[in-house]
Formats: sequence, structure tokens, C-alpha cells
Amino acid sequence: MKSIEEAVRKYFDKSVTDRERAVFEGGIALGAIYHQFTGMPVFKDKDLIRALEEAISKSMRLQPYRESVEVKINADMIKGEKSHAYDYETLKGKHLDVTVKTKYGNAKATVRMKYIPEIDFTLMYIEKLEKI
Amino acid sequence: MKSIEEAVRKYFDKSVTDRERAVFEGGIALGAIYHQFTGMPVFKDKDLIRALEEAISKSMRLQPYRESVEVKINADMIKGEKSHAYDYETLKGKHLDVTVKTKYGNAKATVRMKYIPEIDFTLMYIEKLEKI
Amino acid sequence: MKSIEEAVRKYFDKSVTDRERAVFEGGIALGAIYHQFTGMPVFKDKDLIRALEEAISKSMRLQPYRESVEVKINADMIKGEKSHAYDYETLKGKHLDVTVKTKYGNAKATVRMKYIPEIDFTLMYIEKLEKI
Amino acid sequence: MKSIEEAVRKYFDKSVTDRERAVFEGGIALGAIYHQFTGMPVFKDKDLIRALEEAISKSMRLQPYRESVEVKINADMIKGEKSHAYDYETLKGKHLDVTVKTKYGNAKATVRMKYIPEIDFTLMYIEKLEKI
Repeated sequence: MKSIEEAVRKYFDKSVTDRERAVFEGGIALGAIYHQFTGMPVFKDKDLIRALEEAISKSMRLQPYRESVEVKINADMIKGEKSHAYDYETLKGKHLDVTVKTKYGNAKATVRMKYIPEIDFTLMYIEKLEKI
Repeated sequence: MKSIEEAVRKYFDKSVTDRERAVFEGGIALGAIYHQFTGMPVFKDKDLIRALEEAISKSMRLQPYRESVEVKINADMIKGEKSHAYDYETLKGKHLDVTVKTKYGNAKATVRMKYIPEIDFTLMYIEKLEKI
Repeated sequence: MKSIEEAVRKYFDKSVTDRERAVFEGGIALGAIYHQFTGMPVFKDKDLIRALEEAISKSMRLQPYRESVEVKINADMIKGEKSHAYDYETLKGKHLDVTVKTKYGNAKATVRMKYIPEIDFTLMYIEKLEKI
Repeated sequence: MKSIEEAVRKYFDKSVTDRERAVFEGGIALGAIYHQFTGMPVFKDKDLIRALEEAISKSMRLQPYRESVEVKINADMIKGEKSHAYDYETLKGKHLDVTVKTKYGNAKATVRMKYIPEIDFTLMYIEKLEKI
């Protein structure tokens, strides 16, 4: 519905470019994914990991101006054998490698969240930003 | 590993029965599911809903003493056609029908979270509790 | 409103005792607190920690049959000086020491979530359970 | 620590401007706040609301390049009297009015999340974006 997208535009600073808007939407997606899903119990189980990757991807794709959301969970960093009832992990930022592509007007952004060992931090960054 | 479960037991009040322990674990599961997953974007998409049901079920099954976690998301309560970029919902408690079965010692509990229209509330309750 | 609490009772297994109900409500509270609040950025700042303890305590007190929710965040486990823009932690289960007291009918439960170094796990347990 | 911020820069597309970076950080903050805090129980209690505003503000201020995070919870939209045990609400996006100011290099962004009745949606938008 064109009219709603028009209605929304008036809240934005007039100087905002398509590139800036695409990048803003990408940032929202990464902040949302991290804070929605980390903390859930996980285990190195192929079916669990595949279902979770698909659920996150399809859910976060619904927000505005997302072209694709690709989620890889690094199973090699997650425990693979339960030795007792309390032996399991929770999903952490460092397990996630997420690539979100957004498109607004004639700009496309590829933003990413990925663990960077060098700084021991799950970095959110703008991998690619272009006019089409 | 038996020894860890023994180590844990000393933190519990000595008077706690197997039924009480099974019910406690069930309560934890329901509180966890509600507060971990509500808020994520959802849409009446068969693949998204199936992946999400599976991800929640397999994830929350990992906590101690869970026998099974069955998750049904009520797709009929969720929007099915996106009319503009901002047209989507977030997962709410009322969309969820979750049944968790726990077992501790010789007790089994079936606890459930389900929207009750009569009180307009997503109720968490003990559906069945028995000694085996 | 008595009538709603009556309406709710019929969903519960008839064999459920007041002790079991008090313990179930305690379990819900602990599962909820862990999965709602872990993941948020934290720092060893007295004002932040006090505000967070108060917010969690007052929020989670609202759920049914809670008598009190006491939250201590272990500031000594949290970083105290920011050396660069990416230098901060997120709230983890092991930072939390939470005591929830519930009361149902003539039973009172004290349940607790606390990091146990011996098993390297944030344990949720029933500290005290009694008839009044 | 300058060197870490340098180390991080190489992950970003070379064409990214200071304005784009400031806006990206603002987007992350809004996505994070929404998905971290919605779902928690709330009530029109002055102390709870003040503590929660302060906790969110001080917590989310810790992420990189935030200048300030101002949080207003619209108490008038939240219930003020508990008529029975199950009578309380959860925090929703529409209760929140959040303004995040970020600064990167010589650019400043003011981004905001606010419920817009006209579209019945909690909109995240770029209120102001400027070079200094």
C-alpha cells in the first residue's frame, strides 16, 4: 500500500538518502536478531540448528525493506554430547553469522553480524553499500 | 552424569517431593518459552510457522528433566497477507499452545500454556500430575 | 476478583496441592526472568545495576501469587572500565541471584536462581517449601 | 582504545560515510531495545516505570557510539489497578517512546521509536541527521 509508505516518510529527516535508509533498516534487523534469539538453549543437533536458522531467517525477513536474511549458526562452537541433565548451552552472539540484505529506493545494503576473534566481539557491520 | 544431579540435590529443600520437582521444572519451561520467543515477527506462512514450532520444541527440550515439548502456533490468529511494508505481527502469548511433559524420579507432569478467551489471558497451568 | 481465580482453577489437575501450585508459579517466574533479561548490555555502574535490580523486581512481582522478587546482580563479575567503544558485557545468568517468594492457599515457596561454581551452571532450585 | 576501532573499520565497506555509520548504529539500538524489553510484565506504577526507563537508558547507552538514550514509557496506556491475580499487561512497542542519539566521526544522528496511531505501528525512524 503506497499510501502508508508515504505517510511514514514524513517522520524522516528530509536529508536522509536512500543509502542511509537502507543502512538504518539493516541496523534494526541486526539489533533485533541478537536481542530476540540469544539466550535460548542450543545443542549441536542438526535438526535443531537447521530449524532455528530457518525460523530466524523467515521471521526477520518480514520487517520492512528486507530483501533476504541469511542465518548460519556455527555448530562447531556448540556442545555435541549431553553428559548430564544440566549440560547444555545457550545461543550466544558469537555462534551467529547473519547477513541481511535491504533495499530502499535505489540503494542496497548488505549488513552482517559475525564474531571477530581479533577483538573477541560479535561485530555488526556494513559489508556492502551501493546505489543500483 | 549421576554425580552432578546429586550435587544439585543439596540445594533443594529436603521436603520437596518428586511431583513438586516435576511441576517446578514444567513452570520454568513455560516461563522461559513465553519470554524468549514472544516479540519476534510472524506471518501466516506455513514454512515459517513449522520451522518456529520445531525450533522452540527442540530448543526447550534441552533443559533438565523435559520429556517432550510440543508447540502449536495458532496460524488462524495471525495475518496472512502483507498489504504494505509495515504490515506484519509479532508473536504473542495468545498465539501459542505449548505442552511440556517433565519427569522427575517417579513423577510425571504435563504443564500447558494456552490462551483462555474467557479470561483473555494466556494461562500457564498444570494439566496432569501423576506418580508412575 | 475471586471469580477469575475460580475460573482458572478448573484448568488445573484436581490432584494439585497448594505446595505444588506455589512451586509451579515460582518456576514460571525464574524461567521468565532468565529469558527476558539476559542479553542486555551491562556495566559495573552502580546506578545502572540498582535501576535494573529494581525494574526486574517490580516487573516480575506482577505475575500471579508472587509475594516478593528480590534481585541481586553480582557487580563484581561485571566489567568496570570501558577501554574502547566495543568494550562492554551482556547480562548473563551467572550474574543473577534471584529469590522469588510465592504463596498459594496455605503454602509458601521460596525459589532461587543462582550461579553454582561447582557445576558451572546457573541453577534454579526450590530453597524452601512449607505449609503455613 | 583507538587501535580496536581501527581494527573494526576494515570490515566496513570503504564507501560508508560518517552519516551512514551514525544511522546504522542508531538502527541497531532501536532493534535491540524493542526485542530485549517488550514482553516484560508492566503496570502503571511510578516506581516501576521510572526504574525501567532508567535501566533501559543506561544499559543501551553502553553500545558503541551512543551519545544518549532517552526512554519514555507511556504510563497512560498501561493499566493502573489490578482487579485479580491475572490482571496485568506486558510491555509493548506502542508503550515506548525512545530517542537515541549517536555520533560517529563528524556526523550525528537522532533516531526514534514511537507509536504512530495513523498507521497503528511502532515506527522506527531517523528524526535528524547532520554533519557537525
